[in-house]
Amino acid sequence: MSATTVRVDLAGRPYDIVIGRGLLAELGLRIAALRPGANTVIVTDENVAARHLDTAKASLAGAGITSSEIIIAPGEKSKSIDVFASVCDQILATRIGRNDLVIALGGGVVGDLAGFAAAAVRRGLDYVQVPTTLLAQVDSSVGGKTGINSQYGKNLIGAFHQPILVLADTAVLDTLPEREFQAGYAEVAKYGLIDDAKFFNWLEANWRHVFDGGPEREEAVAICCRAKAAIVARDEKETGDRALLNLGHTFGHALEAGAGFSSRLLHGEAVAIGMVQAFDYSVEQGLANGQDAERVRRHLKSVGLRTRPSEIEGDMPDVDELMALIAQDKKVQRGKLTFILTRGIGESFIAKDVDPAKVHAFLSQQG
Amino acid sequence: MSATTVRVDLAGRPYDIVIGRGLLAELGLRIAALRPGANTVIVTDENVAARHLDTAKASLAGAGITSSEIIIAPGEKSKSIDVFASVCDQILATRIGRNDLVIALGGGVVGDLAGFAAAAVRRGLDYVQVPTTLLAQVDSSVGGKTGINSQYGKNLIGAFHQPILVLADTAVLDTLPEREFQAGYAEVAKYGLIDDAKFFNWLEANWRHVFDGGPEREEAVAICCRAKAAIVARDEKETGDRALLNLGHTFGHALEAGAGFSSRLLHGEAVAIGMVQAFDYSVEQGLANGQDAERVRRHLKSVGLRTRPSEIEGDMPDVDELMALIAQDKKVQRGKLTFILTRGIGESFIAKDVDPAKVHAFLSQQG
Ligand SMILES: NC(=O)c1ccc[n+]([C@@H]2O[C@H](COP(=O)([O-])OP(=O)(O)OC[C@H]3O[C@@H](n4cnc5c(N)ncnc54)[C@H](O)[C@@H]3O)[C@@H](O)[C@H]2O)c1
Ligand SMILES: NC(=O)c1ccc[n+]([C@@H]2O[C@H](COP(=O)([O-])OP(=O)(O)OC[C@H]3O[C@@H](n4cnc5c(N)ncnc54)[C@H](O)[C@@H]3O)[C@@H](O)[C@H]2O)c1
Ligand SMILES: [Zn+2]
Ligand SMILES: [Zn+2]
Repeated sequence: MSATTVRVDLAGRPYDIVIGRGLLAELGLRIAALRPGANTVIVTDENVAARHLDTAKASLAGAGITSSEIIIAPGEKSKSIDVFASVCDQILATRIGRNDLVIALGGGVVGDLAGFAAAAVRRGLDYVQVPTTLLAQVDSSVGGKTGINSQYGKNLIGAFHQPILVLADTAVLDTLPEREFQAGYAEVAKYGLIDDAKFFNWLEANWRHVFDGGPEREEAVAICCRAKAAIVARDEKETGDRALLNLGHTFGHALEAGAGFSSRLLHGEAVAIGMVQAFDYSVEQGLANGQDAERVRRHLKSVGLRTRPSEIEGDMPDVDELMALIAQDKKVQRGKLTFILTRGIGESFIAKDVDPAKVHAFLSQQG
Repeated sequence: MSATTVRVDLAGRPYDIVIGRGLLAELGLRIAALRPGANTVIVTDENVAARHLDTAKASLAGAGITSSEIIIAPGEKSKSIDVFASVCDQILATRIGRNDLVIALGGGVVGDLAGFAAAAVRRGLDYVQVPTTLLAQVDSSVGGKTGINSQYGKNLIGAFHQPILVLADTAVLDTLPEREFQAGYAEVAKYGLIDDAKFFNWLEANWRHVFDGGPEREEAVAICCRAKAAIVARDEKETGDRALLNLGHTFGHALEAGAGFSSRLLHGEAVAIGMVQAFDYSVEQGLANGQDAERVRRHLKSVGLRTRPSEIEGDMPDVDELMALIAQDKKVQRGKLTFILTRGIGESFIAKDVDPAKVHAFLSQQG
């Protein structure tokens, strides 16, 4: 089986992201290579369990790795303190020891929740990420950010906890609902927009094969992982340029919050609109040119993503409420806004001191 | 004001423990020196708030540091996931930012809980420990272990999160109930028993002044902090000789659990009995001599501590149940017990592979 390996170079704790079609069947062997005879607890959700848990368990058993499983309800609601407490207790109930492993088998929700539980139980168990959504493969499973939501916002309680292995089987994405795939694709495009214009060009030409599961899918996931791994290695705790990964996310989070973090607007769908807004705002500020913004909008639209707030069905907050949501966002420091803005495709940068009044004016004329 | 400073030498994140009588009045200045103009949230419990919160707040205000407070119910029950969730939410409600501080003002319960909340909120806020019990000053506030309890046992969910400053005002211990002081004293004696026979001798001669608040108290706290800091610097994540700090704790935890973690037996009181048991067991195994064990028992008794399981009032589990509690303890690996045993006062060592049958026999003849 062909597989691509991306090394995440963290001082003292380097680990591999392995990407390939059908890799789930190798999970056991790859874990056995790192931790022969380990006991494992798989955390997964109902949707993923129905489709991929048997394969995972059979692979583990075949390599002499015992496993038990904790199955949570699918969806963002599971990133709560109650589910966190229950997962910690269930991990403890299995009596796995300090040398054993937690395996997060699922999308970003499972990864964030199980990762935080692994960080907290016995003050830190090692864990393996087996991302099963496109978003998780290119984004959430890489970088060690874990966490749950609070009533005050998303991901506000958590830990930095790096996995010892990330195994991304691009074939498991075949069972992912189309809409989830599209949402994850927004994060794929993001890597091109941040600092890799060549990748964005390539996506414009090859996106159909990423969607239909050709070798381009593996290639795209690998490029994204490499990009994220490089940023994370430079800036593990997000004090510096890791913030570039937030392109489209400040506008996006406000829209997500505005839509009540519901299925009306998935995270990646919000990011797609947010990235277009970041480009449009940058054009308006004379930073980028309109053709680039138009290319971004056209490409995201062609894969089926919405690109304007007006395309979100149902009631949405007005501009004042959106500004309040933006101000609440964690990327605010002492009254000034920090945004990721851009000078063009592949030329994004961190702009501190963005003037809230200008953003307000921009949002007021958005369609 | 005289103060003793002990440096905790952690690579990249060194911090100071400052020890002195009346230091609480300097809290504001010392925080301002590290974080001028910071906003702070004080986490404390009702007992400590009634006695020392005003002093702390006045000191902060005097140094231009704003503060708000979160007051929890006193006692071990507050180290629960529910109180943790509530403290995290209350910290978030104050909207303090990444550069602000959490201040843990209280005993080990407040320190462990607030420390874990600081670790988890926004994936890590800096915090300051202001320990107000003897146990917290010599033990729990130093070393960065934080956490809460689970139904499966104590401290099973948490984080390693180092404070940026520990401020131990030995005068706040004047308001501590005698019994709490005695319990904390068991941990003081522990440092002598682990590897500092000279300190144990000194304690035999000077313990009264430690209790009555003379300069010997400050000296004893400083010696303990220095000892713990040295061990922590060598072994931050407890993979090696940090385990020595568990002298008396394996037997002790079983007794604590057996007494239902109730006020029948405080942690330090259990540790006192556990240390005597560790000495007695070591004598029985021909490792240490009976005179040393007798000196330990006599000293702990003289400060008012119980030294035998039979002195615990009320029903206690039988030996089989105690063994089950010991086996559940986290210091068990693959069927063998790890105990801290001793060759005499100041000569403790980590014994892996302790035979459960021998421990069972030993406990069976305990009075
Ligand atoms: N930690 C980070 O760095 C980071 C980065 C980005 C996003 N996130 C988090 O990730 C979460 C979103 O992740 P997500 O988009 O993967 O959501 P998700 O985990 O909720 O998965 C989306 C849906 O797809 C289902 N599913 C997953 N894999 C499947 C498969 N192979 N076949 C069929 N169905 C499958 C799930 O059950 C769920 O219903 C958010 O909570 C977000 O905050 C974290
Ligand atoms: N993190 C670590 O490394 C570590 C080490 C040892 C113990 N611990 C933990 O510490 C906890 C026990 O700590 P503790 O013994 O300080 O208990 P505690 O925090 O419950 O304090 C004991 C009692 O004294 C009261 N009190 C505190 N300061 C006072 C003061 N100055 N005046 C009057 N009353 C005061 C408290 O309200 C409480 O009722 C346990 O949960 C244990 O697991 C942690
Ligand atoms: Zn995202
Ligand atoms: Zn102790």
